[in-house]
Amino acid sequence: MNHLEDTIVAISTPIGEGGIGIVRLSGKDAIPIADKVFFSPKGKKLRDAKSHTIIYGFVIDPIENNRIDEVIVTVMKAPKTYTREDVVEINCHGGMLPLHATMRILLREGARLAEPGEFTKRAFLNGRIDLSQAEAVIDIIRAKTETAERLALKQLEGKLSSRITDIRDKLVELCMHIEAYIDFPEEEIESLEKQDIINSIDMIKGNLSNIIRSYDEGKFFREGVSTAIVGKPNVGKSSLLNALLQKDRAIVTEIPGTTRDIIEDYVNIKGLPLRIMDTAGIRETHDLAEIEGVRRSLKAIDGADIVLAVLDASRQLDKADKEVIDKVKGKKTIIVINKSDIESPTFDLEPLSFNLKPCVRVSALKGDGIDDLKDAIYSMCITSSKAADAAIDAEDIIITNIRHRQAIEKALKSLYNAEDILKRNEPLEIAAIFIRESLDSLGEIVGVVTTEDILNKIFNEFCIGK
Amino acid sequence: MNHLEDTIVAISTPIGEGGIGIVRLSGKDAIPIADKVFFSPKGKKLRDAKSHTIIYGFVIDPIENNRIDEVIVTVMKAPKTYTREDVVEINCHGGMLPLHATMRILLREGARLAEPGEFTKRAFLNGRIDLSQAEAVIDIIRAKTETAERLALKQLEGKLSSRITDIRDKLVELCMHIEAYIDFPEEEIESLEKQDIINSIDMIKGNLSNIIRSYDEGKFFREGVSTAIVGKPNVGKSSLLNALLQKDRAIVTEIPGTTRDIIEDYVNIKGLPLRIMDTAGIRETHDLAEIEGVRRSLKAIDGADIVLAVLDASRQLDKADKEVIDKVKGKKTIIVINKSDIESPTFDLEPLSFNLKPCVRVSALKGDGIDDLKDAIYSMCITSSKAADAAIDAEDIIITNIRHRQAIEKALKSLYNAEDILKRNEPLEIAAIFIRESLDSLGEIVGVVTTEDILNKIFNEFCIGK
Repeated sequence: MNHLEDTIVAISTPIGEGGIGIVRLSGKDAIPIADKVFFSPKGKKLRDAKSHTIIYGFVIDPIENNRIDEVIVTVMKAPKTYTREDVVEINCHGGMLPLHATMRILLREGARLAEPGEFTKRAFLNGRIDLSQAEAVIDIIRAKTETAERLALKQLEGKLSSRITDIRDKLVELCMHIEAYIDFPEEEIESLEKQDIINSIDMIKGNLSNIIRSYDEGKFFREGVSTAIVGKPNVGKSSLLNALLQKDRAIVTEIPGTTRDIIEDYVNIKGLPLRIMDTAGIRETHDLAEIEGVRRSLKAIDGADIVLAVLDASRQLDKADKEVIDKVKGKKTIIVINKSDIESPTFDLEPLSFNLKPCVRVSALKGDGIDDLKDAIYSMCITSSKAADAAIDAEDIIITNIRHRQAIEKALKSLYNAEDILKRNEPLEIAAIFIRESLDSLGEIVGVVTTEDILNKIFNEFCIGK
Repeated sequence: MNHLEDTIVAISTPIGEGGIGIVRLSGKDAIPIADKVFFSPKGKKLRDAKSHTIIYGFVIDPIENNRIDEVIVTVMKAPKTYTREDVVEINCHGGMLPLHATMRILLREGARLAEPGEFTKRAFLNGRIDLSQAEAVIDIIRAKTETAERLALKQLEGKLSSRITDIRDKLVELCMHIEAYIDFPEEEIESLEKQDIINSIDMIKGNLSNIIRSYDEGKFFREGVSTAIVGKPNVGKSSLLNALLQKDRAIVTEIPGTTRDIIEDYVNIKGLPLRIMDTAGIRETHDLAEIEGVRRSLKAIDGADIVLAVLDASRQLDKADKEVIDKVKGKKTIIVINKSDIESPTFDLEPLSFNLKPCVRVSALKGDGIDDLKDAIYSMCITSSKAADAAIDAEDIIITNIRHRQAIEKALKSLYNAEDILKRNEPLEIAAIFIRESLDSLGEIVGVVTTEDILNKIFNEFCIGK
């Protein structure tokens, strides 16, 4: 941990041209090092500044004795800082030259270049935030929708941490209870008491399973929902795409191509980022280009998180529709009955058995029913009893990080093993070991239990300067 | 100017992923608007904050009642701020989502989106800086070398402004002197006194001419020096390019291509940014591709600020060398005698008359003489008695902006006219008008005299958020 003794420096704002750029220092020498390169026309020194105040002046090169930039400097003294160390932020004029020159001089005067995520890593190592909170920082920076950002912010605020800590506390209690019997082998555990322990483990298992289930939703918010619009030709798939996009004024990034190609667009439904693919109509054909189009449509179905299968209410259903419905078996599918404003008397859904797939009637051209469709899409993604927004407002947990999911799955598996041991009356010691195992797995999430490897993996994902 | 009553907001850091992003507000309602979206866990309000302090908290959406980001907020109260208005800077986690969400809510709560450069424009309109200082801000942001950046910083610090103001003061004095005679026509101006006035004008003209001359150098620092390496084939042009680059460890951005193409690289000589072009060897040829190569070499000579004409000391000079020297007539040229370590006894410069062009002997392969060549290049660009670095350290002025040059040229022309009138004993009123004209031209530089047009032109070049 000698590494932690260094004072680190980095450019903390994005690369590029901008009004303001920040060079940030953290560490025990942050203030004296910054003072070496700081000149205030009023003769002020950073070391005399009160914490959490800013001072106007210039960055100077003390060797060349010239001015580098006009700046305002923020002095924040430990421990109430991002890293819990002394932090100095130098706000330069934007532009890479003043920023780089300032950083180069600070490096010469004794600071070390920060590694990616090292400021946040120090916040973790110095105990200001736990590991799941540190991970939330990068999720906030990379968030694609506001809901994703709010989920990450909740995590940063420690909602996941406190839930995990609660569960760990219960496990520790259980463990101590069991270990009491191990330490005093003359006493035998009563079957009623053992049942209590099993019940407790069951409850915790239930909690963990709920959190794992939240992952799919969390992942949707973080990474987006891949949605394929499929159907036989001329049922109004492209109109449906347009209808979905227009209502939400989403940024449309249309990849130009022929109608054989898949057209992708993006739309945001209540904070849920949808990547919608409009596909070629599915039917049997001998046209080579169309065969390729259909092949791609089928592939799109495979890769999609959810499928919108479009039927044309103005015509009688036929074999081609039946085939489409067959193709989407086993996928999360919404049946979209388009052109419902001109529904034909011969249109009849009966012959197609949908296995309880939800149906929505729309008119893509007129825009009727599109909101209902969006609600249906949202509900299909957010299957838990509470919707994400409600979850965010409430104290519910939604995890978005696969590392957390894996850790909880490991913990859950250990608890199954512990329960098994207890039920089969095998030695309590072994049950205790499994419970300790699950404790450790959960500890990985918040970073109570961690390895240099895990830390490197997490923080290498960060940008430099965070 | 009602426009100035608005409170403006913008994202002031570059677009992209970074550790920190800043949303900046300026205007009379900056603090109350920011307070509407700010939540401090300790219940602090920004309006109660002392100026130039920072407060930890959250950006909230007061309507949706949810949190947007964890932030630190800097409160700076007028007049000691960038704009001389109340300024609030909200440091968000980097990443576009929290920044955009924060800005959107601030817009809803009463701020207006800032125009490009509007913060700096307000600094000008509110009298904190003059127009040439405002222009220096964008030069700092866009600077390509440290010297360019230092020149801009000097300008930002007001060195140009004070020089221009001094000259204007003298002109005002002159004008008042002349106008006294106009107001009291019964008094006639003595010829001795008139000569004094003419002498004063002469001195000012000298000053202005010096400043204009500094422009070429200033332009070099700001925009770089385009340098063409030319010569007949196989004299070592590409080796010379490599030798120049290697010594300075410049960033090499080689545009790949055939040997017919011009290869461009960048090198920094004492702060002077050089764009060096290695060209195809010049000779008469019937090879079509080579003809095109030669055509491009000649075009490169035309476009270059300076030319390095390379000769091969290991061979006797021939007609092809003579042709090369002919082509560079009238250009700022340095004769580079390469392979001087293996100089042939038959090598003789006499037949080529160089018209006093400087010669430097080098061995591009061994690296000998390359520093001398760099000195020669630098001296050729920086022709004034004082080098730029010395000028920067001293109080000398180097202008880099064509707008300033044009204004000074106009002022100079008016002074020539005024002098002419005085010498020809024409009415003093007209001389006074010309002097007023030159006053106005100089006033355009610092912005004493300006139009909405000039302001728009200048500030539209800025990025949003500055």
